[in-house]
Formats: sequence, structure tokens, C-alpha cells
Amino acid sequence: MIKSIDDRQAALRTLMAEKGIDIYIVPTSDDHSSEYVGDYFKTREYITGFTGSAGTAIITANESGLWTDGRYFVQAEKQLADNQTILYKMGNDGVLTVSQYIQNQLEILAENGKKPVIGFDGRCMTAVNGYRYLEMVNKFGGELKTDLDLIGELWSERPELVNSKPWILTEEYSGVDTAQKLSDVRSFMKNVDAKYHLISDLCNVAWLLNMRGEDISHVPVFMSYMLISQDEATLFIGEDEENWNDSLGVTDDENAADLASGCNRLTPEAQKYLSERKISIKPYNDIYHTLENIDGSILLDERFSNYRICNSLPDAVNVLNQPEPETLMRALKNDVEIANTIAAHIDDGVAMTKFIYQIKKKMGLLSEDVENVAKSKGPEDYQEMAYEEPLTELSAATYLDKLRSEIDDYLDLSFSTISAYGPNAAMAHYSATPENYSDVKPRGFLLVDSGGHYKRGTTDITRTTAVGPVSDEEREMYTRTLQSHLRLEYAKFIQGTAAVQLDILAREPYWEVGKDFKHGTGHGVGHILNVHEGPNSFRWRITDLSSVQEMLPGMITSDEPGYYEDDKYGIRIENVILCQEDMKNDYGQFFSFKPLTMVPIDLEPVDLDMLSKQEKSWINDYHRQVRENIAPHLTGATLAWLEEVTQPV
Amino acid sequence: MIKSIDDRQAALRTLMAEKGIDIYIVPTSDDHSSEYVGDYFKTREYITGFTGSAGTAIITANESGLWTDGRYFVQAEKQLADNQTILYKMGNDGVLTVSQYIQNQLEILAENGKKPVIGFDGRCMTAVNGYRYLEMVNKFGGELKTDLDLIGELWSERPELVNSKPWILTEEYSGVDTAQKLSDVRSFMKNVDAKYHLISDLCNVAWLLNMRGEDISHVPVFMSYMLISQDEATLFIGEDEENWNDSLGVTDDENAADLASGCNRLTPEAQKYLSERKISIKPYNDIYHTLENIDGSILLDERFSNYRICNSLPDAVNVLNQPEPETLMRALKNDVEIANTIAAHIDDGVAMTKFIYQIKKKMGLLSEDVENVAKSKGPEDYQEMAYEEPLTELSAATYLDKLRSEIDDYLDLSFSTISAYGPNAAMAHYSATPENYSDVKPRGFLLVDSGGHYKRGTTDITRTTAVGPVSDEEREMYTRTLQSHLRLEYAKFIQGTAAVQLDILAREPYWEVGKDFKHGTGHGVGHILNVHEGPNSFRWRITDLSSVQEMLPGMITSDEPGYYEDDKYGIRIENVILCQEDMKNDYGQFFSFKPLTMVPIDLEPVDLDMLSKQEKSWINDYHRQVRENIAPHLTGATLAWLEEVTQPV
Repeated sequence: MIKSIDDRQAALRTLMAEKGIDIYIVPTSDDHSSEYVGDYFKTREYITGFTGSAGTAIITANESGLWTDGRYFVQAEKQLADNQTILYKMGNDGVLTVSQYIQNQLEILAENGKKPVIGFDGRCMTAVNGYRYLEMVNKFGGELKTDLDLIGELWSERPELVNSKPWILTEEYSGVDTAQKLSDVRSFMKNVDAKYHLISDLCNVAWLLNMRGEDISHVPVFMSYMLISQDEATLFIGEDEENWNDSLGVTDDENAADLASGCNRLTPEAQKYLSERKISIKPYNDIYHTLENIDGSILLDERFSNYRICNSLPDAVNVLNQPEPETLMRALKNDVEIANTIAAHIDDGVAMTKFIYQIKKKMGLLSEDVENVAKSKGPEDYQEMAYEEPLTELSAATYLDKLRSEIDDYLDLSFSTISAYGPNAAMAHYSATPENYSDVKPRGFLLVDSGGHYKRGTTDITRTTAVGPVSDEEREMYTRTLQSHLRLEYAKFIQGTAAVQLDILAREPYWEVGKDFKHGTGHGVGHILNVHEGPNSFRWRITDLSSVQEMLPGMITSDEPGYYEDDKYGIRIENVILCQEDMKNDYGQFFSFKPLTMVPIDLEPVDLDMLSKQEKSWINDYHRQVRENIAPHLTGATLAWLEEVTQPV
Repeated sequence: MIKSIDDRQAALRTLMAEKGIDIYIVPTSDDHSSEYVGDYFKTREYITGFTGSAGTAIITANESGLWTDGRYFVQAEKQLADNQTILYKMGNDGVLTVSQYIQNQLEILAENGKKPVIGFDGRCMTAVNGYRYLEMVNKFGGELKTDLDLIGELWSERPELVNSKPWILTEEYSGVDTAQKLSDVRSFMKNVDAKYHLISDLCNVAWLLNMRGEDISHVPVFMSYMLISQDEATLFIGEDEENWNDSLGVTDDENAADLASGCNRLTPEAQKYLSERKISIKPYNDIYHTLENIDGSILLDERFSNYRICNSLPDAVNVLNQPEPETLMRALKNDVEIANTIAAHIDDGVAMTKFIYQIKKKMGLLSEDVENVAKSKGPEDYQEMAYEEPLTELSAATYLDKLRSEIDDYLDLSFSTISAYGPNAAMAHYSATPENYSDVKPRGFLLVDSGGHYKRGTTDITRTTAVGPVSDEEREMYTRTLQSHLRLEYAKFIQGTAAVQLDILAREPYWEVGKDFKHGTGHGVGHILNVHEGPNSFRWRITDLSSVQEMLPGMITSDEPGYYEDDKYGIRIENVILCQEDMKNDYGQFFSFKPLTMVPIDLEPVDLDMLSKQEKSWINDYHRQVRENIAPHLTGATLAWLEEVTQPV
């Protein structure tokens, strides 16, 4: 039974009243603080209607609010329009933060003589946030209730929990065996005097084990924890406790395979891979009981470990709360990962180049020369874009997804393709759906942000294509976006420079005219994991020292500045770039970026007069690389087009 | 009796042996962690021969070392050449830090079965460093000896301690009365729950009291402490304890002037100013005894308060170790200070413009047009540069200092003028002296870094003037220096941007060709105080959160990138720039800089082809401002020259 959002919130309020809860918090999270979550965990979407990947809902007896960031302001406004939920635009001047809002609510409750109760599902709340709410409510003599899942109680048609079977990323793809990774992790633990180490971040588990799953759409991980000591390593996996022998554990090489055979979640190959590396297996939910019985010290990250996890630890345990060390380890891609990723980007670039050519062709924007090649050579030797009148956001995305899916080692999209025409592109994370999409008209921009997971690696690219004439304002802002993109991509910097410093190179072309964009300039790109990963990301705001990450060779990061005018247009240009060593001399070791993305950048909407000689030389250098890498894989008119659009300016 | 440096070190080793000291540390400091110190405190110079403003000497039984930073590598190499002291170039790859060196020495001593003893004068060591050495030596079962001044015992011809009489900077110059500043400080103290607040930084005392002194050459401060509570404020001043009544204190308005009349350090006006604001006076050395008897909490900065001060505090006192709040308060110049500083920069700019004109004239580099004006108009109506064959670094500096000294409200140079020709300019803080200076030859660059203190404010400017042909390399690096300077000066940025981020805008023109300069890009400029002040400074290395200072309106900072080739040449271009509010819109509040320095930048050595349109427009904008502000104060050939060299490019 599908109720309206307001009905769902009313039902939640009834439940809250029954349980004596004044403030109920619904973050966007699974038990592992995942950025993207399986459908089973989309409780915040269920209770507000907002489908974005980031946001926090708060429901009180009288109010409901949603907090989200600049990427989602426009989308959230639309999705909340037909219900009572108030949108709180995070980061905007004068907008209450989640904590400020809760603080105000607590004060109001206290003024009314109430000892306030805050409720949330302790598994879906990070420990660091849970502790903050505990501290806040304690000050008013109130309490937390966290062993509950009120949305789950309401949600009659809740999707099934997905339990995919992890597969092994063999060493020709992973580059480094799990045994070596485990040894590196144990060395790190020794250095920080950690007796135990809990991995909650699903990407870290997958990286460590060289395994991938399918529990979360576009994020090939599997629900699990790892608990590591110098002698033991245990994988907690599988949701179905009655199928599991609680005492199951692999401690002996020879018996390992047999003992683990009870596991309904692991293939025999996976079980063998683990047992050969002396990694035991336990049921997923045993993690709580296991943690209740440890002593000494434990290294974990309270930003990823959930509140219930951290509450399970005996008081005597010394918690070393710091980033999970695997996060930095996996951000520094090894040589095998880098070589494979470069190759994957070429195949992905070929698909993207075909796609943009087809868009230009459908919109009648090919030059006479290219048209002539197209006529003389007949159809391309690959699937051309299906005829459709008119071209739509959705048909464009479908066609692009098909081109990607034809690549040999294609696994999945790395995220749901964003294909946004005109004003829709002002929503940085807009998705066209079969129910709701726009035609592509012969003016302005079509913005397409997309990527794939391949066995060789992960891609993420945005191109904004002129599908007809653009206004002077659009041309200026497209040119500034290109300047921004290039200044970061072609930056050289000395060892020790932090991403948070490089970011402002990309901001200056906007800031100099009093403009900005309300998202980071780039994110780390996971290797067949979450396409968004840390700790490398281009942001400008320094909040604390953890926001200051030195750029290091092997880091792969997106460079994706953009510009958005609500209800008018959106522009973004994104390449994925690899940090690599450049010259070394008396001044130190210099680093620079190598662009991995190999797709022409549309120069039609560029105001060349705004570009410096240096900026033009960067464009020409990049387009030379694109031509050299992509042209050998093209024929006919697509090749002719590529050669034309990558000519030096 | 003047001994050689090696003899002095030998005598120190004898004293060290007598006192049982293994490692003796001589920092560059007075009791207040001042950057520049009075001659009385130049113990590190006495024991090493190195005259730079920053450095630490360490003497052991067998070795002596000096640690200093990139500004002083060349100078220190020369000055240490004829003695045994080893130069440790701080920041260079593989060079031991002071702490690493001491750690090594402690290990060697421990291996030889010795319980090590580290000695230093506890008054001239910051608490933060003193505690670090204490912790290090404790680990080896050793101890510190700090109630001693071994250099003082050796130094038979030690200069007298200067005790100038502070004068009052009246409100037309200070802009804000001491009573208001004291009230602001007390509000800050309340917010951080500090019962007491100790000000050790001499510039903070001078700022708070609207008084200036002459205890340190070019830094108009006076040796003193302030101890503040909500009810009391006490100035500790004067070195001569027997002339003071220990119980002297001003608690009563009417008796204040009488009670304080015993003070031999303060004029009657100063005593009246203090007593009217309920500020008591105590002898300087009473600070130790006073601190021994306080309770509750005290706000102080262990980076400025000395080791003996902090050791005087009872264990029960809660030390709130954080930056002295006056440091940020005085960095945010008030409207009166800003208006006066702008005016002072115009007079200073007129002097500098005359100076550069005279240099060009003496080197025969005037255009025919300007020469003709010079011939037709006869001598300028101000003192022209004395004839001298050849022009020297020293005569140039003397002439410039004279031009400044003729400005109405001139007080002092803000630092000793750096006038450096050719290879000498590679030493970022070189000073020509009557004993040691170079001729200016008709090729390459003359670098002059100079400034003045006026009652209206403080200036600091560097111009690098081509005194003849320059090489292609010199031209390229001069142009890069100008690009670097302009990119920072014309940056626009959003509220919250830190100086540590803006710095890399100035680094990119060097980094892109694998070059760099080994000093900060800029420093805060004190208002008739130390020309170098924090917390605003342009640096790129983020060491901790205290190195991350948001740029705020009212901050006045230098913008002085440079390039140095050892034994060849040095280039630096410096303006002082004011951070001010720029546009405000939905993206937030933007800030930009207003250049205060008004002196033409030599464009002769610029490769105009390297400049973008934007960079050229910045040059033209700056030179327009220079022309508008300076031209009205010039006549004759100097005016003709100014108009010529500020024409748009």
C-alpha cells in the first residue's frame, strides 16, 4: 500500500508517540555509512520522497525537515513540493544546521518541561553523530532510543536485502594479493598500537579481500565487516543468522574449506581464497557480540562505524578513532591498477566519442566535410543511435549506456547516467527517468555525466555538448568552466601541496566575476568500488586537519568544475586525472596530473578570445592525446569528426 | 676583548663543563619571543657570528651547529665560513631538524652511560620549546638547567639593555582607545573562561596600550608584560628593581598619578594615560613572583611566553594555551589606521619613485624624452642623489633612507634597508654595510627592500630595478615574479578562504617550470610595530590548523614573491595589500585586495609576450593607481618619467 509522504510521516508520528520519541532522525545510510545504499536502506527517501544520495530527515511531532547540500537543492525543492517537509539548504547563509535545529527543538521541549527523547536506528547512524546527539540530549536530562527501526515497521513493501555472492578480482586486475595488503594493514596497526582493527567501510573490505559484490547498485561491494588482529582476521558476512553456525571460524588451514562450507554467501572459490589467507568467516550479525568481548585497543573510524557497533565495545577498550588505514592505501593505486585504468578509459572514451558524434549528428551540427564523409562511407560499423523524434534525455542516456555495455569487460555503470538538457542540468545530480524526462531542443547544452565499471577499472566523465546556439552568458560561463578545468588539470605543484589548496586554482575563473559552484571540484575515484572515494578530493573549505590531504602519486581524482543557473542551464566538464611524479630538483619533488579521460571537449561554445596562450596550449595538448588514443579505434565519419574537433586552436 | 667565534665557543664549553651541561641551546630571542631583538639579546650572533634575524645555535662538547631557514642560507654560509659552526639548512631534504639533532645527541650520551643535561636561558626560550626539550631529556633520565645565561657570563662587552620611554599614539592615529581594546580583550577572556590573561608579545602590549617605544631597533616596542583579569590590569615594566616599590599598584583613580610617580620608565603623560584607564604598574621582574601566586585559569600563548614564565605558574593553574587574542585584533586594522596607512603609503611611494628615477638616471637609462625634460627644467626641487662614481648598494640605501627621513611624520625605518646588487640579491635578507658592499654595475638588477614607520603607519616595499641589460633567464624569471605578484594581488576569493590557499596562486608561475622560492609570499604588516606580524601570512605549507588563517577584511599583508639564483641574481617584487570586502551575492561575500604600495614596477625587464591579456590589464590598473596617487606630488623630469613608465602596455 503506497501512502502519500504526508501519510507516511503521520504514521511515523503515531509510532513515535507510542515509543515516547520526540525527535526522530533518518540519515541516508546503511550499517556501514555507505554513500550510496541498497534499496532496502532507503528509509530517508521513503519518509520524505527525496531521492538524492545525500540528506538527513528529521521528524518531530509538528514538523518534518530535510537537510541536503547544494548538489540537490533544485531536485529536493521539486521532490518535496507536494508534501509538508521543509527543505534546509545546507551551507546557505542563515540556514540552521541539523545540530542547530535539534538544539532548538531540545530547548523548546525543555521549556515545556519535557525530558526530550531522540530516536534513530543505531545501525544506520555513524557513531560520531550518535555521540553528538547523545551529548546534546544529555544536557537536557533526556535520552536516546536507538535499538529500533521505525521506518522498517511502517514500510510494508520494503525491498529485500540484497545478498550477492562476492567474486574474486584476480591479481592480474588487483595487482596486489590480499596477503600482502593484510600484512600492510597489520604493520599500520602495530605502529599505532592497535590490538584490533575493525573495517566498517564496505569499500575497504572489498579492496582488502580483492573481492567485489553486487549489494549496492553501481557500487560493487557486499555487506560485511572485517575484524583484524595480528593473529586473526575475520570476515563477518551474510544476513541470515539461522543458517550460520555461530562458532564457525577458520583457524586451521586444512579444515578451512570444510568449516566454511556452511556459508551460503560465499562461493567455494571465495571460501578457498579466504582460507588460504587464514581469514575466518563469521555471520554478519555476530560482529556485535564479538566486539562485546574484546579487550585492549581497537582502531576504527567513528565516521564509518555505526553507533550500535561503538556502543557494543566494553568501556575498558581503548578506541583509536581515526581513518581506516585502507582508505589511503587503496587511494594510492598500484601500477597494475593504473595501467588497467588507462586502458579502460580508452575504451570508455571511444564509446563517449561515438556518443557525442551521434548527438551532434542528430542535432544537425556536423560540418559539411564530416557530412560528406558520412554520406560517402555509409553507416558506421557500430550501432548508430536509433532514430527518434525528438531526441530526449532518456534516449541519449539509453544509447550511451548501450555503447558502454558492449565493452568487453563491462561490469556495470559506475553510477546512474545523468543526461540533462537545459534547465534540468542546473540540478547537479539530476536523473531523467522514464516517467520524467525532457526533449533535447536545438539550442543550449546537453550535460551528460556518466561512467562505467570494467574489470580493468572505473570511469567517470562529464561532457557538456552544445546542441545548438548558446547565449553569450552560456558561452562565457562554459569558457570559464573550461578554464577552471584546465587550470587544475595542468597544475604543477610541489610535494606536500594539499588538494584543498589546488582547488582554488579551479575556483578563480568563477570567483573573479563573483560566481561559484556549490560542489567540490573533484572526488577520488574508486577502483571498481564507489566512484566517489576519499581521502583525495578537491574542496576549498578547510574544516579541520582531516580535510587537508596531501596529493600523492597514484591518486586518481575527478576534475569537474561546473556552473549552474537555476531554471536556465548547467555546465560541467569532467576528466579523471592521475597524480604522478614530475621533475625533481633542489626545490623538491614536483607532481602533476595525467588526464586519464580521453574524450574531446566541445570547443563550439568557447569564447577563444577569453583564453590565454597557455590555456590554448593546454587544450591542444589534451586534444592531441585524445586523438592519438581514440582515433585508432574509430573509422568513417566518426573518425573524421574526431580529427576535426581536436584540431589545434 | 673580542675573541674569535671559535674562542668564544671554547670558553662556552669550559663553562658548560663546569656546570655539567652537555648540550647548550641558544635561540634568537629575548624574554618575549620577539622576532627582532635588542642588541643586548643577540647571544646567538655572539656565539656563532651569524647576524640573521632567525636561527638557533646548539653547542655540545665537540660540535656547534646553526639552524636557519632559506632566507639566510647564503648569508649564513658566508658568516660561518671562518669558524667551526656547521650550518643546518632547515627544510632541505635530509637535513636534521633541531629536535632530531638533539635526539641524536641524547642517544649518544645515553649510550656512553651519561644522564644528559640540556641547558638554556629559560627567559629566552619559548615555553613550547622548553617543554619539548624537557620531555626529550626526561626520556633519558636527564635534566634541564635553565636558570642561567652562559653567554651573558662570557660576554664582557655586552651592550646595555635599552629602556626607552614609551610615547602615546593618540586616538587620531590609533583609532580606538585603550579602554575599548581592554574591554574587547576582557570579553574574549570571558568567552574562554580565563580568569587571567598574560600578554608576552611586546607588539600586543604596545597595541593594547596605544603606546610605542624604542627598545628594539625598527620595532617600536618596550620591554613589558601585561597581566589582565576582569577587575585589574597591570603593566610590568622597567628593569631596575631597586628603584621600584614592589607593592606599587594603582587601584584608585585619584592617587594613581602619585603612586606611579616612582616609575623611572614612564613619562608623566604615560602614567596619566594608564591610571585613567585603571591600569596599574609594577616592576618588570615582578611578573614571575606575581604569577607564582595566582589561581584559577590563565590564557597565554606558550609560543610567546617564555619557559621561566610558564614554570612560575602553580601546578593547579589551568593554562589555556592559545594565541594571544590581541594578535588577531590588531591584525584587523581599524578605519583610522587604514586611512592613515593609505596616506603614509603615498608619501612613501613618492620617496620610492624619486629614488628609482634617480637610479635610472645615474645608470643612464632615461628615455630621450625624459632626459630632455631634465635638461630643460633644471634640477628637481628636492635633494637629488649625490654624485658618486660608481653608484653603490650603500649610497643607494643612504639616499633612499634620507628621502624617507624627510617625510613629516617619519619615525624610523621599519627595518634596515636591503639594497643588493646582482648576486648579493640572492641573499633574501642581505644588508650592505660600510665594511662590505658592492658597486652597482650597468647590467642586471638592483633589488631594494625597504620601508618606514610613520605616525600614520608602516610601509614595506621591494622593487627590483634593471640597471642595465638583463639576460634572457633574468627576464623570464622577472616576468614570472611579476605574474606571481599580480595573481595574488588581483585574486578574488570567497569568505572563508585561507591565506595558505591563496599562496599557491603566487607559486604556480614558478612551479609550472619546476622553480620555487624558499620564503613565504607575504607577512602581515604591523601598524607601527614589527613590520612582520601574524596571523595573516601567505605560506603554502599547512602544518597544523594554526597555520590556516582565514583572510579577513582589514588585514594588511605583503605580497612579495621572488626568485633567487645563488651567486647570480635575486628578484623580488613587493606591495603591501589590504584585504577588503568585494561583492556579496547568493554565492556569499567575496573579498579582494587593494594595493596600498604606490610605486611603479619596472617593466623594462618584462617579457610582455609571456603575459596574458588579464595580466596586462592588472599591470595597467595598478600603474593607473600609482599615477593618480603619486603624480600630483612630483614635478619636472621625475613626473615625466613616472608618466612614461606607467603608460598602459
